[in-house]
Amino acid sequence: MTDLEGIQDLSREGFKSLLHQAADIILDLYDDVGAKKVYRSQSQEEVHALFAEDLPDTGTQIEGLLQTLQKDIIPNVALHYSPHFYAWVTSSATQASILGEMLASALNVNATTWLNAPAASELEQRVIRWIVEFIGYDPEANGVLVSGGSLSNFTALRVAIAQKCPYHYAQVGFDKNRALRIYASEQAHFCIERAIGSLGLGMENLVKIRVDKHFRIDLQHLREHIEMDLSEGRIPLAVVGNAGTVNTGAVDPINELSAVCKAYGLWLDLDAAYGGFAASIPKRREQEFAGMDLADSITIDLHKWLFVPFECGALLMKNPNHLRDTFRMVPEYQRFDHEDSKVDFSEWSMQQSRSFKALKVWMNFKAYGAEPLRQSIRSSLEWMQSLGKMIEASNDFELITPVSLSVVCFRYRSPENDLDLTALNRLNKAIVEDSEQDERVFIRETTIRGQTVLRACCTNFRREKKHLQYLLAVLREFGRRNLHRLGI
Amino acid sequence: MTDLEGIQDLSREGFKSLLHQAADIILDLYDDVGAKKVYRSQSQEEVHALFAEDLPDTGTQIEGLLQTLQKDIIPNVALHYSPHFYAWVTSSATQASILGEMLASALNVNATTWLNAPAASELEQRVIRWIVEFIGYDPEANGVLVSGGSLSNFTALRVAIAQKCPYHYAQVGFDKNRALRIYASEQAHFCIERAIGSLGLGMENLVKIRVDKHFRIDLQHLREHIEMDLSEGRIPLAVVGNAGTVNTGAVDPINELSAVCKAYGLWLDLDAAYGGFAASIPKRREQEFAGMDLADSITIDLHKWLFVPFECGALLMKNPNHLRDTFRMVPEYQRFDHEDSKVDFSEWSMQQSRSFKALKVWMNFKAYGAEPLRQSIRSSLEWMQSLGKMIEASNDFELITPVSLSVVCFRYRSPENDLDLTALNRLNKAIVEDSEQDERVFIRETTIRGQTVLRACCTNFRREKKHLQYLLAVLREFGRRNLHRLGI
Repeated sequence: MTDLEGIQDLSREGFKSLLHQAADIILDLYDDVGAKKVYRSQSQEEVHALFAEDLPDTGTQIEGLLQTLQKDIIPNVALHYSPHFYAWVTSSATQASILGEMLASALNVNATTWLNAPAASELEQRVIRWIVEFIGYDPEANGVLVSGGSLSNFTALRVAIAQKCPYHYAQVGFDKNRALRIYASEQAHFCIERAIGSLGLGMENLVKIRVDKHFRIDLQHLREHIEMDLSEGRIPLAVVGNAGTVNTGAVDPINELSAVCKAYGLWLDLDAAYGGFAASIPKRREQEFAGMDLADSITIDLHKWLFVPFECGALLMKNPNHLRDTFRMVPEYQRFDHEDSKVDFSEWSMQQSRSFKALKVWMNFKAYGAEPLRQSIRSSLEWMQSLGKMIEASNDFELITPVSLSVVCFRYRSPENDLDLTALNRLNKAIVEDSEQDERVFIRETTIRGQTVLRACCTNFRREKKHLQYLLAVLREFGRRNLHRLGI
Repeated sequence: MTDLEGIQDLSREGFKSLLHQAADIILDLYDDVGAKKVYRSQSQEEVHALFAEDLPDTGTQIEGLLQTLQKDIIPNVALHYSPHFYAWVTSSATQASILGEMLASALNVNATTWLNAPAASELEQRVIRWIVEFIGYDPEANGVLVSGGSLSNFTALRVAIAQKCPYHYAQVGFDKNRALRIYASEQAHFCIERAIGSLGLGMENLVKIRVDKHFRIDLQHLREHIEMDLSEGRIPLAVVGNAGTVNTGAVDPINELSAVCKAYGLWLDLDAAYGGFAASIPKRREQEFAGMDLADSITIDLHKWLFVPFECGALLMKNPNHLRDTFRMVPEYQRFDHEDSKVDFSEWSMQQSRSFKALKVWMNFKAYGAEPLRQSIRSSLEWMQSLGKMIEASNDFELITPVSLSVVCFRYRSPENDLDLTALNRLNKAIVEDSEQDERVFIRETTIRGQTVLRACCTNFRREKKHLQYLLAVLREFGRRNLHRLGI
C-alpha cells in the first residue's frame, strides 16, 4: 500500500460539533420564515463566479464549507418553503419529514431488495397503504415511491402498454403499423408528451383533446377521436386524466373518463401529481375526485401536497401485480429463493438503487396524523379560494379562471379597466419582472388563451391570510408603478 | 375557515432538541462501525409486524418516533457502510457528504430551473466539471446528476437514439421495419435490457455479444453481428461498453470498442456506474480505462465509488448540447426569456422536480479534495487485490476469476480439494445462508459458468486489511461446518 492518506472519519466530538453547526443553520432557515426575503436577484455571472474554482486537490475544513453554504448558497436560491413563494406548485416540508430525510441520508441503506433493508421494504409498503387510504383509492391497490411525477407518469404508461398492448411491445418493440394511441387533454403536463416520446410510441400518437371553458377534457371530443382511431386501424390504449392541472388546477371529470375507458377497454391513468391529496378531504372526494378509485393507476407527488422534501412521488396501481409483472428482471447475483411476501422494490420500477424515501413519509404521517395533514391541505384550498374572492372584490385585479384547487390565475388590470390585451400583457409581464427584482414575493406568469396572467400556487402549510393580503398589496404597488412607467 | 388545527412548526427550542437527538442517533451509527453487527436475520412476518398499524388519525411525539427508529428500523436493515458488508457494490458515504445531503433536505429547493435555485444550477455544473476532470473525460463534456445507473443508462440510450436514428423516433415512434440495434456483452447490467424494453426498441434488438475468458466483450463477435445486421437491413445504433461489470469487475477494451463504433458510425455509451471512478487513478486510466475519453456518453454512480449517500448518479455527455437537444420541452408557465447561460436542468433529463444533489457532491470534493478521494478508491482496489492473493495463498479457498477492479469471485473448496461441482455449489450456497443467519459478515453468491461462487465487493473507504482476514476466517468457519453438516 502507498503511504498516502485516504478519507478519514472525524472523531465523535468533531462530527458532533459539525452536526450541531448544521442544526443551527437549519434552525435559522426555519426561524420566522415569513420575514425572510424569498429571493435574491443576481445575474448569472455573479452566481457563477461564487463557485468558479478548479477541482481542489486537498481538503478544506468543513466548518468553512458550512460558512460558504450560509454566505453563497442559501441566499442564492428561492426560498421554496416561504409563504411568499407562489411561483410553482412546490414543496414546503414539515420538520418531521425533514428529520426523516436527514436520518435516511445518514443511515444510507439501499431500499432495493427486501434483503438489503427489510425495514425499508416493509415501511414503504406501509406508507403506500396509508397513502391509498388517505386519498380513498382502491384498498387492494399498491404502489412504489419514485422521484416524482415525470418518472411516475412514464412508469404508469409503461405498465399500461404491458397490460393493454395486443403485441409484445417489450420484446419486439413498438409497431407503427399498429400504433398505440394515448389520449390526454391539451392541458396535460408536458411530461406526458416527453414520456410518450421516450417510450418509442411517437409523440404524434399522443392525441390532445380540447378542453371546456373550465379547462376540463371535452368528453365528446375524446369519444370522437377514439372512434376515429378505431375506424382507421389504430389501437386506443390509454387515457391520461388530469386530477389537478398545474396550469389552472382543473380536474377532469373522472367518473365519465372511467366510463369511456371501460366502454373501449382503455387504461385510465390519473395524473394527480399536484392535486391528488385534495382527495383526502371527503367533500372533494365526493365531488371533483369522484371516481378516482376506478383509475388503473395514479401518479401523486408527496413533495407537493404531502409536505415532504424533494424527491418523493408515488405511483399507485389498482392491480397489485402490475408493477412487478412489468419490471421484474432479476440478474443472477440478485436471485433469492425467498417467498413472494418479501417485496423487492427494485422489481417495481425502472430504478435499481433507491434511497430510503419511505422514512420521511412515515415520519410525516406518524408525527402529525391524517387529520392535521388533511386540515393543512384544506387550508391551502380555503386560502386560495379566499384569494380568489379578494381579487374579485378588488377594483384593480381580475380573476381569469374560477379557482378550482389551489392555483389562482389572475391579472392586474388597473382601476380604470380600460386597457387592451397588448397593454394588459405587457403590464402583467412587467409586474412579474419587478417581483423578481424586488424579492418580497416570488410569483410567475402563465399564458391562458393568449392572456399573460399571474399565477399563484399554494401547497404550503405555512401560508396564512395575511400573506395573501401582502401579496396583493405588493403586486398592486408594481401594477401602479408600471402603469406609469409603461405609459399605458 | 374551520377551527381544526393543521400542521404547526415546533418552537426553535423544540426543533433544536430534536435535531440534537437526531445528531446523537447519527453519531451512534458512525461510532466504531466495524464492531456493529452488519445484519440481523429476521423473518418477513417479524419485520412486517413492527409496522403493521392503521393510518393514524392523530400525531405522535417525534421523540417517540426517533426511539422507534432506533429500536425497530435501524437494526432491521443491512448496515451498508459497514466494512463487513460485501454483498453488493453500494454506498459508504463520507460524513461531509451526509452533512451536505442533510442540509439539502432542510433547504429543500427544487433544482429544476436556474430561476428556482441559481446556486443549485451553478453548483451542479461545477461538480459535473469536477467529475469530468477527476476521471479524465473530455474537458468539453457536460452532464446531469440523476438517481443512479439504471435511469442514467436509459437516458444515455434515449440521447443516442435522438442523435443516431435515421428517422424521427421521438415524433413517429420506433419502426420495427427499420429496427435499431444495440450491442452489449452478455455481462452487461440487466438495466440495459430493461431500458431497451421501455424505449420501445424491443428487447430482441439488444444483441448480446459473448465474452472472452476475462468476461470482456469479444470484438470479433461484435463486428460479425454488426455486419450481419447491416446486410439484413437493420440499423446498428449503439454499443454499451462495460467499464466495470458488477458481476466480476470486467472492463471491456474501450479503445477497441471506440474504433469499432467509429468505423460503423455507432454511439459508444459506457456503463461505468460501478467502475468509472477507478479511472481517477492515472495508472488505471492509462491501462484498462484507456480510450474512455472517446465515449459519447458515460454513466457513473457517485453513490457507489465517490462515497456519497443514495441517490446520486451522473450522466456525462461528450457533446455538451445533446442532453438539452433531446429533452427540452418547455411548458408555458416555465418559459423564460433568459440567455442560454442560465442552465435549466429540467431540460436535461426525464425529471422535472429535482432535489439538490449537487450539494453533497460539492461537500465531498471540497472537504476531502481529489487526492484523498483518489487514495480511498486506490485502497479499495489494493485491498481487494490483496484479498485475491490471500485466497490464492490459502489451501481451502480458490479464486474463480482474476481480480479486475474491486470485485472478488471465489469459493470455499475444502483443504482436500476433492469435491465435484454439485457438492461445491451446495457448499458455497450453504456458506451464504449461514452468513445471513450469523450476522458477522454480509456476503452473497453469484453464478459464474455454472459455478456458485462467493462475491465480495468493495467501494467502502472504511475497509482495512484486518476486515479481509476476518472475512476469510468467518467464511472458513462456515465452510468447515457445512462440509461436516452436508456430509460432503
